[in-house]
Amino acid sequence: MIGRSPVRVAVNGYGVIGKRVADAVRLQDDMELVGVCDVASDWRLRSLDHKGITLYGASEETARSMNQAGLAVAGTLKALVQAVDIIVDCTPKRVGAANVQHYRARGIKFIVHGGEKHAVTGHSFVADSSFTTAVGRESTRVVSCNTTSIVRTLSALKRAGLLKRARGTLLRRATDPWESDAGGIMNTLVPEGEIPSHQGPDARSVDPELDVVTMAVKVPETLAHLHYWVVQLTRPAEKEEVLQAFRESSRIALIRTADGLTAINTVKELMADLDRPRDNLYEVALWEDMLRTEGDELFYAYMVDNQAIVIPETIDAIRALTGLASDAHSSIARTNASLGIRQRFF
Amino acid sequence: MIGRSPVRVAVNGYGVIGKRVADAVRLQDDMELVGVCDVASDWRLRSLDHKGITLYGASEETARSMNQAGLAVAGTLKALVQAVDIIVDCTPKRVGAANVQHYRARGIKFIVHGGEKHAVTGHSFVADSSFTTAVGRESTRVVSCNTTSIVRTLSALKRAGLLKRARGTLLRRATDPWESDAGGIMNTLVPEGEIPSHQGPDARSVDPELDVVTMAVKVPETLAHLHYWVVQLTRPAEKEEVLQAFRESSRIALIRTADGLTAINTVKELMADLDRPRDNLYEVALWEDMLRTEGDELFYAYMVDNQAIVIPETIDAIRALTGLASDAHSSIARTNASLGIRQRFF
Repeated sequence: MIGRSPVRVAVNGYGVIGKRVADAVRLQDDMELVGVCDVASDWRLRSLDHKGITLYGASEETARSMNQAGLAVAGTLKALVQAVDIIVDCTPKRVGAANVQHYRARGIKFIVHGGEKHAVTGHSFVADSSFTTAVGRESTRVVSCNTTSIVRTLSALKRAGLLKRARGTLLRRATDPWESDAGGIMNTLVPEGEIPSHQGPDARSVDPELDVVTMAVKVPETLAHLHYWVVQLTRPAEKEEVLQAFRESSRIALIRTADGLTAINTVKELMADLDRPRDNLYEVALWEDMLRTEGDELFYAYMVDNQAIVIPETIDAIRALTGLASDAHSSIARTNASLGIRQRFF
Repeated sequence: MIGRSPVRVAVNGYGVIGKRVADAVRLQDDMELVGVCDVASDWRLRSLDHKGITLYGASEETARSMNQAGLAVAGTLKALVQAVDIIVDCTPKRVGAANVQHYRARGIKFIVHGGEKHAVTGHSFVADSSFTTAVGRESTRVVSCNTTSIVRTLSALKRAGLLKRARGTLLRRATDPWESDAGGIMNTLVPEGEIPSHQGPDARSVDPELDVVTMAVKVPETLAHLHYWVVQLTRPAEKEEVLQAFRESSRIALIRTADGLTAINTVKELMADLDRPRDNLYEVALWEDMLRTEGDELFYAYMVDNQAIVIPETIDAIRALTGLASDAHSSIARTNASLGIRQRFF
């Protein structure tokens, strides 16, 4: 890698994920953020100037609107694509799939996110599990927040030879904190209409060997998802052996109710106290003292910050596709160091 | 039963459960509500006059306070106990256990609720499962809302020879709708600190044969609990066979998302539309179209109205202890008819 010039990265879509990817790319010394592209011209893009990030419009028309709104625009997506090695698509669900032909026509590498189907790229990415098969590819899909957490945790159990099958109940946050009109619910619980929910099959798009079934329900809060798992182990195991398996993953942080971390809001507050940007929790925060084994059964719960968990995966995916790293271990270590990812918070 | 005079019933504690038990007792033609006892003197007891229910004070001092507040008081708990055959204790957790010696000293039968431990009466009650062993006893404990729903559903599977073991994740409503300062939470999720949660062992206090483990989490809503289950069956079974097992229980109502019943608030609204008092949902409302079998595994979700589900059980418990009925079937049928309990809502 020594002497290699930084990989030039673009981010398309400056929303919940895109803004975090942009920040994270700027923290990598082997990457350069060339610019971000969006379609809005309101407050959401007004902080780019403050941050020194270059803005592009999705089309000529968008660029004109941005200009008229007083935003400095460097050009259109077409120009941005010509100036980079790889683009990270963080546009809303299904928009990304439509953008893909554009990226392919320009011959650049690209990453889509979990809102798109596996077939859009033919490869689904979680660094712990599918880094190697992504190396040098044209594209990959960084899977959703829920799926990322599932693959991280179940892969850890699998590597330890403990995983037989896993059954999870997923409490999904209703909407993102900044939203006021997209899916917010109050004083109710809204089951996903289908059992199993889509996350189980989605995890198998990363690792087809995982025997996993999920059920999901939307709950009236905005902070994070919360997963409860019943795992059938390959054999009876003690709690400590399971914890050790989770400790082998650098992106699972063990937390304890005994430390007062009794709810998802306290964990988010801790992230702020640790000076994390946007209170990001990149790790799966898994309650060590709640975890229980009974014979060959394992029970545990963890928290998933749906806004932040896929950010380190996206950084690793950039390294895999562009050949900045050829093995998961070195990329993960580099990403973790840059974002301050840790296995214990104190 | 013909010619037998109604059993005289008292209710101690006019809260969420007590007020519903009182209403339900008054709907039974083999029971007479002699009066209710409480310790408050505020708005909570002001509707008794409107309803024509006689009020007693827990102590001389309470009775005086009630009098001073302008409430009509017929006497103290001591007098009420002497005028009845059975008392249903609906006082807060642990208060009931303290009251028990008082009931025993007076030689009357009594029922406590799920906030008390099994040892307080030595018998735990769900009509579907433990009616017969309660017949003629001095006392029983009607188990909590969550436990009642667990025993109803798992007993149905057990009777059909399908139940091997069941693992549930319980989303618990944060507080009761009328409360404003007891446990309400906002924009967070609060796991119960221990896995397994207490409901699994509690279900075994009714039926020691049930192999059941539960995990629980408090969610920011007030309407109802929601349970998700993964059940290992004794053998592979089709969905229809499982549904038929649930249909054999008269207190499980099958509902469908296809009818627009997509969330717990819509089910509560339906109860209001059906002219149920206080929108009570006495049944376990189980989503028929979400239920799924995969080989020898079963997945499903249901809703538990924590304010209402134990009311029919309490009525049946009165019949069992006082000998008004000697078998579950006749009592359940009578209770169901009086409360309008049904297996389909339309």
